Amino acid sequence: MEYFKCSSEELEKEYAALKKRYKDEKGKGLSLNMARGKPGKEQLDLSLKMLDVMNSKSDFIGEDGMDCRNYGIFHGIDECRKLFGEILGVPSNSVMVGGNSSLNMMFDTISCMMTKPIVEGCKPWYEVPDRKFLCPVPGYDRHFGITQYYGFEMIPVPMNENGPDMDIVERLVSNDESIKGIWCVPKYSNPNGITYSDETVRRFASLKPAAKDFRIMWDNAYCIHDITDTPDKLLNIVDECRKTGNVDLPVLFCSTSKITFPGAGVAAMAASSNNMKVFAARYNYEIISYDKLNMLRHVKFFGDFNGVLKHMEKHKAILKPKFDIVLNTLDKELKPTGTANWTNPNGGYFVSVDVMEGTAKRVVHLCRDAGVVLTGAGATYPLGNDPHDSNIRIAPTFPPNNELEQAMDIFCTCAKLAACEKLLGKI
Amino acid sequence: MEYFKCSSEELEKEYAALKKRYKDEKGKGLSLNMARGKPGKEQLDLSLKMLDVMNSKSDFIGEDGMDCRNYGIFHGIDECRKLFGEILGVPSNSVMVGGNSSLNMMFDTISCMMTKPIVEGCKPWYEVPDRKFLCPVPGYDRHFGITQYYGFEMIPVPMNENGPDMDIVERLVSNDESIKGIWCVPKYSNPNGITYSDETVRRFASLKPAAKDFRIMWDNAYCIHDITDTPDKLLNIVDECRKTGNVDLPVLFCSTSKITFPGAGVAAMAASSNNMKVFAARYNYEIISYDKLNMLRHVKFFGDFNGVLKHMEKHKAILKPKFDIVLNTLDKELKPTGTANWTNPNGGYFVSVDVMEGTAKRVVHLCRDAGVVLTGAGATYPLGNDPHDSNIRIAPTFPPNNELEQAMDIFCTCAKLAACEKLLGKI
Repeated sequence: MEYFKCSSEELEKEYAALKKRYKDEKGKGLSLNMARGKPGKEQLDLSLKMLDVMNSKSDFIGEDGMDCRNYGIFHGIDECRKLFGEILGVPSNSVMVGGNSSLNMMFDTISCMMTKPIVEGCKPWYEVPDRKFLCPVPGYDRHFGITQYYGFEMIPVPMNENGPDMDIVERLVSNDESIKGIWCVPKYSNPNGITYSDETVRRFASLKPAAKDFRIMWDNAYCIHDITDTPDKLLNIVDECRKTGNVDLPVLFCSTSKITFPGAGVAAMAASSNNMKVFAARYNYEIISYDKLNMLRHVKFFGDFNGVLKHMEKHKAILKPKFDIVLNTLDKELKPTGTANWTNPNGGYFVSVDVMEGTAKRVVHLCRDAGVVLTGAGATYPLGNDPHDSNIRIAPTFPPNNELEQAMDIFCTCAKLAACEKLLGKI
Repeated sequence: MEYFKCSSEELEKEYAALKKRYKDEKGKGLSLNMARGKPGKEQLDLSLKMLDVMNSKSDFIGEDGMDCRNYGIFHGIDECRKLFGEILGVPSNSVMVGGNSSLNMMFDTISCMMTKPIVEGCKPWYEVPDRKFLCPVPGYDRHFGITQYYGFEMIPVPMNENGPDMDIVERLVSNDESIKGIWCVPKYSNPNGITYSDETVRRFASLKPAAKDFRIMWDNAYCIHDITDTPDKLLNIVDECRKTGNVDLPVLFCSTSKITFPGAGVAAMAASSNNMKVFAARYNYEIISYDKLNMLRHVKFFGDFNGVLKHMEKHKAILKPKFDIVLNTLDKELKPTGTANWTNPNGGYFVSVDVMEGTAKRVVHLCRDAGVVLTGAGATYPLGNDPHDSNIRIAPTFPPNNELEQAMDIFCTCAKLAACEKLLGKI
């Protein structure tokens, strides 16, 4: 039944039925979690053999002849830079391999530009009191958190089916010197799973920012994380920037957190030589070297880029049924009501659901009371402020499939219940 | 022969003999390195079995019930916090376990205070244009590098046999609000191997800095790194600060870089709850979690603190002969000349040699030309500026013993050669 076309009587009836259903579900005393983009146990088990390739009988010598157990090589071992170069589609000499967290490298990158100018003659961002950052919405809460921590005014830019609205991006950055950057998850973006169109990438590469030190934070977290057999293709921004002469614009990030182990993977970044000179000047004081044994462990496990891609097929086989459960339940339960919209991504880690305007907080609250933890409503907006109180990020990867089914049933009950409440003027 | 008592004729003769000896040594075409405090291969091999305790058949569940392969727990797993708590002599709930580098945690700590006040109402240090940091000399070049990077004026404080000259420290910090901290390696200090006396630690705990946000960077890098059977004892600064009510003064650091693997160890820090609140507010945005598998790997390998101490006995057995080679060669070759002084440490990684004033740079240069790489002369002073051009840090741990013998022979030849040159007015 399409809620907007219902009479009050019909809605009251539906509401009563949903209340009963909700009470039943709540009575089960469940404890389910769809809050964060965490790989499930089955996915973690895919990389178990990686722990065996490095043992007491191993050779610890990297391609550059160094004992990887010891200090040295702060930009990472050659074979690992090469592997990440292929993953990111950039020359390996533009890659720096870090610790286990690309978020940490993004934080360091912003932190660096806060106190040192990335372009000679520009002010460090700390000295720009009205500094601003563009935040495509819905987006990744931890990105927004970094620029929040560093006191940026965050300007939301709406996402459409091609990526961030480039008319708005172009207008803003070309007029305001205090806008210093933009957060991007260009492929299977967090949370709506959209991949930036070729035109969007080209327009990014052609930006003419008023700020000489404007940087695109290009977090390619899901660059090889397909879940369907019709994967998206993302244009290579570094190639496009070479054509436009804007090579210093993007800074790229990725990691193996969702390839091997989130808690024990390897992260990397890539940037132009001008940018890298400034970042390396900091890393040179910041650390002697990151964990080279873990870099070598990853390279030995995968062999080469092709080995990584084969490994990703196994993740896909595990993730596809999970996304099917989410999408099928939404289709069955919410579609008929006409109260919600959601994305149908070809990869990534999330399904972004827009429930009825003004009910997202209520839905998350109802779910929590019934034992289902979701990402907080509003989390996909800077400062947690979703002006429509509508977007909820579903993270289906962590729960086992039977739990995911239960959790999605409860989610849909709650979404419908909240919609009825709203339409009936009860909230 | 005591050089200062020699006639010019005797010195010229000695000089000629040394020149010949130097030429012979140079002719061997050696390539030896005593530059950095790197453990040698034999030491690295002590921890090989650590790589076997974590394999594809392992249980990855930590004491807090979490799968250590996945995201979560940004302050580190409980059992690892406990272990570092024992190493540092502090409650485990004041410990944060990080990545593989304590230097990285120190950088982050200074970086944090650059842009956020550690004490409410104080200015972030970025906003203190004449910010200063105390640097006991000789000291650790990488410490000085961090405060150099962040634009501090670095004030050298001379070290004596009890640690930094506390009369000077007390006078400086009590009068100047722009002095924000001091670098300390309190046990087996880098490079002179001195352990701070009980009185020094108590005077640190009793400091009354003019700056409310003054912090002691207490890098306990060599806290359990003895090399003789008469180890030094360091008073626990956290206990002393509890007595004086100065609990927020010190921030403690250590790592397993010189216990297991420099390139793949685990680092930790500890601080009061007031301090940790500010640091954690940053870490919360900076990272989701550090490498928990490597934490668990370390805990499984050692079992407990006692296991760590037993392990350190094995390091001692390897290091003692190396320090003996250095000290015996210095005794035999340099002592009779009366031109140099050095320390005789009970632990740590270095022997600090003061060659004849005005010759350190020359000695390092001569050594390099003969194939022996030393830490740059002056490196133990802020900005590399040793006013006496006298201090050289010898790092004997990395070369195999036979190479170390050769390297020390060459070092002594060069030190004597440079002393002759100086006394004869040739440099």
